[in-house]
Amino acid sequence: MKLFDTKLAPNARRVRIFLAEKGISVPLEPVDLMKLEQRSEDFTSLNPDQKVPVLALDDGTILSESVAICRYFEEIQPEPALFGRGALGRAQVEMWQRRLELELFFPIMETVRNGHPAWAVLESPQLADHAAKMRQRVLDVLPRLDRDLADREFAAGDAFSIADITGLCALDFMRIPRIRIPDELVHLKRWHAALSERPSATA
Amino acid sequence: MKLFDTKLAPNARRVRIFLAEKGISVPLEPVDLMKLEQRSEDFTSLNPDQKVPVLALDDGTILSESVAICRYFEEIQPEPALFGRGALGRAQVEMWQRRLELELFFPIMETVRNGHPAWAVLESPQLADHAAKMRQRVLDVLPRLDRDLADREFAAGDAFSIADITGLCALDFMRIPRIRIPDELVHLKRWHAALSERPSATA
Repeated sequence: MKLFDTKLAPNARRVRIFLAEKGISVPLEPVDLMKLEQRSEDFTSLNPDQKVPVLALDDGTILSESVAICRYFEEIQPEPALFGRGALGRAQVEMWQRRLELELFFPIMETVRNGHPAWAVLESPQLADHAAKMRQRVLDVLPRLDRDLADREFAAGDAFSIADITGLCALDFMRIPRIRIPDELVHLKRWHAALSERPSATA
Repeated sequence: MKLFDTKLAPNARRVRIFLAEKGISVPLEPVDLMKLEQRSEDFTSLNPDQKVPVLALDDGTILSESVAICRYFEEIQPEPALFGRGALGRAQVEMWQRRLELELFFPIMETVRNGHPAWAVLESPQLADHAAKMRQRVLDVLPRLDRDLADREFAAGDAFSIADITGLCALDFMRIPRIRIPDELVHLKRWHAALSERPSATA
């Protein structure tokens, strides 16, 4: 088994943190996105979608999409459960995972892809007005997330889950478009600090 | 239990089709998005996120996000399995579900939200250049999906899954931005026709 990985993309970091929380070690194969290695003939024949991360199983099966890769490891090693426990618990992790993706992670990615000069090689055309709209969407959602986190320790409730990993990777990636968590959002800052202190955060 | 629903949004249709495939009946409560009922005081106190669909459980618990609602029903009634079977099967459904969302469903939604006059009340500002870019992204992905479907019956393999529901709702929603499946994409057309003939398609 081998995980094609990049230090550049927060999606790849989600998988590394997930594996660290599970205590699973998988050999990493770096792919240099800025050198467009993901568009090389070799990599394209592996993953026609040209996206990283990708998990290659020993029988040649390929899994792309960071959350699908995490789901695979959750299924083969259920503990610690990072997709929730019980019907309602699993649904709530799915809900918060998706809310954090749709309302935070994706708008941050769109801000970077459409607004950062280094991404011009990857995103064409870059649309400055869309980047500005997405940046505003991020700024608008942060206070809502702060309120959501006021009465609980983690994104989906009392237990750490993949939704927290998505949130951490999103918030940390805000440094690229230079968005800071406002000081008055104390619950959001507490959550971010707690996640950052976990050993998995350095994965 | 009650499902707040709308005929307008393909995300709400995903849940109705999922329930029909499971043979589960849930009372529906219509929400008129164009009258902005989702922003009313009543609805906002139910779901501060102001999004539809929302599932209200009998104990007052609220679940938003269409896939989270589907996940809840998968957990309480596992058969027929619509999120896949076994570790690899579940990961592959997750992968195709996400690819169909990220590469097809979301770009179609963005084309409509940013390009259709009726959505001006919901999406502000509407960005015509972003709509055009997303329309092109949809046109580019259709031939890729056609190739993916050449060697299998359903999106994630031999079994019908939630990924197919996502695909059907996406393709049908293309009528709003007037995107048609090109006639030469015979595998995509075969897949779409087969999904459309299932009784659940009318849900």
